Amino acid sequence: MPPATVDSAFQKVTEGVQVKTNPYGPNPHDFMSNVSRFKLIESTLREGEQFANAFFDTAKKIEIAKALDDFGVDYIELTSPAASEQSRLDCEAICKLGLKAKILTHIRCHMDDARIAVATGVDGVDVVIGTSQFLREYSHGKDMNYIAKSAIEVIEFVKSHGIEIRFSSEDSFRSDLVDLLNIYRTVDKIGVNRVGIADTVGCANPRQVYDLVRTLKSIVTCEIECHFHNDTGCAIANAYTALEAGATFIDVSVLGIGERNGITSLGGLMARMIAADRDYVLSKYKLHKLRDLENLVAESVQINIPFNNPITGFCAFTHKAGIHAKAILANPSTYEILDPADFGLTRYIHFANRLTGWNAIKSRVDQLNLSLTDAQCKEVTAKIKALGDIRPLNIDDVDSIIREYHADQNNDIAEAIQA
Amino acid sequence: MPPATVDSAFQKVTEGVQVKTNPYGPNPHDFMSNVSRFKLIESTLREGEQFANAFFDTAKKIEIAKALDDFGVDYIELTSPAASEQSRLDCEAICKLGLKAKILTHIRCHMDDARIAVATGVDGVDVVIGTSQFLREYSHGKDMNYIAKSAIEVIEFVKSHGIEIRFSSEDSFRSDLVDLLNIYRTVDKIGVNRVGIADTVGCANPRQVYDLVRTLKSIVTCEIECHFHNDTGCAIANAYTALEAGATFIDVSVLGIGERNGITSLGGLMARMIAADRDYVLSKYKLHKLRDLENLVAESVQINIPFNNPITGFCAFTHKAGIHAKAILANPSTYEILDPADFGLTRYIHFANRLTGWNAIKSRVDQLNLSLTDAQCKEVTAKIKALGDIRPLNIDDVDSIIREYHADQNNDIAEAIQA
Repeated sequence: MPPATVDSAFQKVTEGVQVKTNPYGPNPHDFMSNVSRFKLIESTLREGEQFANAFFDTAKKIEIAKALDDFGVDYIELTSPAASEQSRLDCEAICKLGLKAKILTHIRCHMDDARIAVATGVDGVDVVIGTSQFLREYSHGKDMNYIAKSAIEVIEFVKSHGIEIRFSSEDSFRSDLVDLLNIYRTVDKIGVNRVGIADTVGCANPRQVYDLVRTLKSIVTCEIECHFHNDTGCAIANAYTALEAGATFIDVSVLGIGERNGITSLGGLMARMIAADRDYVLSKYKLHKLRDLENLVAESVQINIPFNNPITGFCAFTHKAGIHAKAILANPSTYEILDPADFGLTRYIHFANRLTGWNAIKSRVDQLNLSLTDAQCKEVTAKIKALGDIRPLNIDDVDSIIREYHADQNNDIAEAIQA
Repeated sequence: MPPATVDSAFQKVTEGVQVKTNPYGPNPHDFMSNVSRFKLIESTLREGEQFANAFFDTAKKIEIAKALDDFGVDYIELTSPAASEQSRLDCEAICKLGLKAKILTHIRCHMDDARIAVATGVDGVDVVIGTSQFLREYSHGKDMNYIAKSAIEVIEFVKSHGIEIRFSSEDSFRSDLVDLLNIYRTVDKIGVNRVGIADTVGCANPRQVYDLVRTLKSIVTCEIECHFHNDTGCAIANAYTALEAGATFIDVSVLGIGERNGITSLGGLMARMIAADRDYVLSKYKLHKLRDLENLVAESVQINIPFNNPITGFCAFTHKAGIHAKAILANPSTYEILDPADFGLTRYIHFANRLTGWNAIKSRVDQLNLSLTDAQCKEVTAKIKALGDIRPLNIDDVDSIIREYHADQNNDIAEAIQA
């Protein structure tokens, strides 16, 4: 039987248990969920520039912006033009590229920054201000009244230039809930395109995220954007949960690069979302370009792709244990929620090790175009496992053992005929 | 003012908003939560051995087991002694080490495997069987009645040897809920120490996890163990949410190594849990040994620590953007939910780049024991940012600019005095 696709396998399962939809997708009764209509705000050229190793010159920024646009991201966010003169010039240059993606820049909630930003030709401005007690005390030193006053001034100014405006709090999960809701309702009434929640320190957990987004959703009419740092390893899960609660926009960067150990990664979120709604993800994003995009950024900032990176980590589709290999050979969906072909990748059955099983070895015997019975495959598997107990094996080791065994069997037959 | 610790900073915030407990910790009204009493089942020597690159010889297994025990893990899980003869011998050897951690081995739900397992001297046996339609069809080919019958036989046998027994389904999130609850209630009635939920393919998301664990909790009296693969980037968040829903045991491996791109990582879970209950985590685990433990395993399987690894990634405590650096210098908790000192690490303010701010440069001026006014610091910062626009900077570049500027100022003063 040929390996079934993920879809047809789901079909098979769902027929069995009388469920009509993908059970790992959005719940059809979950009316608040935006899992099937999320959008990406890609921030490699803003948050990513805050990564320890990042230095993007103009040519590199343009190369990355074009690659992101080609991948299909909805928005590209750039470093504040107030950060440095070259940052301003680069922002102008990227606005002039005529990309399909909308271009945003990210500024402090300050009129000086806002004036520079609107002059660059961006499609929208993302405004942020710290609202937590920590940031109010140790960063800008302002109270909530001052924050509201500044926000209104900056928002009205940006709106008067006819471009998009987002207002976000910073460190939202350590901000006072009443303060937050007050400021969000205020800016929503003035009329912003999006309000943003930012887990600036990476402290949030999924159920907190669900609660805060759902609460915010109940008091604003605009869309909600979320930004999650990954200090405690929850950035992808928090993004997914935020969409379930009614957020629409997720901030990502390639490989998650950003301050400290970064934010929700573009590739990681693609892995999460394709498991939830494959059709939507495939209709919007060119997933087979993910690997090249990650390599481009990794080379630019001189890092290696993590061994365990979602999708493109070197072993993300490598199956090793004997019982895994057996089932994968029968139907890949048994041990894969993602189909490597969706990303232009292939799976690999790792059979050269002591945990291997006879099904994996039989598959290798077939690949070598040799002929052995099941009983013989079991016998040669025992020989392979015995050598695998002594030292690491490579494919040549396994192939040698199989060929030698096969030759012995044929010699036995030849001798039997001669006798 | 000296930098406050995370605790005293929390104190300050909580005083302000009339909350008495850590708001990122377990909710005091959440009676089901085991966030403050979780335990670790460390599976580097079982799941980790299924990592593509892993080959642990006996000496390396013993070295890793001792390091895990020293770190403070509650259980150490080993590869099935049925996998190969050396696996069996290694299991016996580790049982004889007299470690504080309990030793488990992980077997198929099969009497052949169970007999070999109980003979090794382990403290407990983890039994697993595939319950999803996929696994029932493409792996073992058995129905739920057969599964229940095998489970009862194996459980009674292991119990008769007076050691711990865990029964887990495999691919639990793609198994029929009624089938799952039936088999769990059956094994709970016979009397197992733990039942296990396994997200074998990495498809689960946090709210699904919460629902399944909570439901399971309502029908069994034993403890619940959870095992999460990381294919869609949710393994750490799912583990946390499982604890909130009433699970007690989380399977982890060092750096998350395992089949494909692995499972919940030990370090990642430590990051998540210390943000929730610092006192509990510090009382149980030697966090300052995490880095050495990760290096030991990374070297054994020939991988690099990912650049974005929680806690030990090279830039996990590096702060770059000017506004971040300013606040971190005033109070590290502003942009850190984790205290690097808890892990024997230090933070780093990255000031040699065009996103730097004058507060970061002023701090460097002080480190160099030079004397500049705030206005002068702002002026020299502008020079540093201008060079940072042209090319990547290193610390020497910044120090040269500062020293040159400082010398110029002093020459001006000297000339003024002479004039």
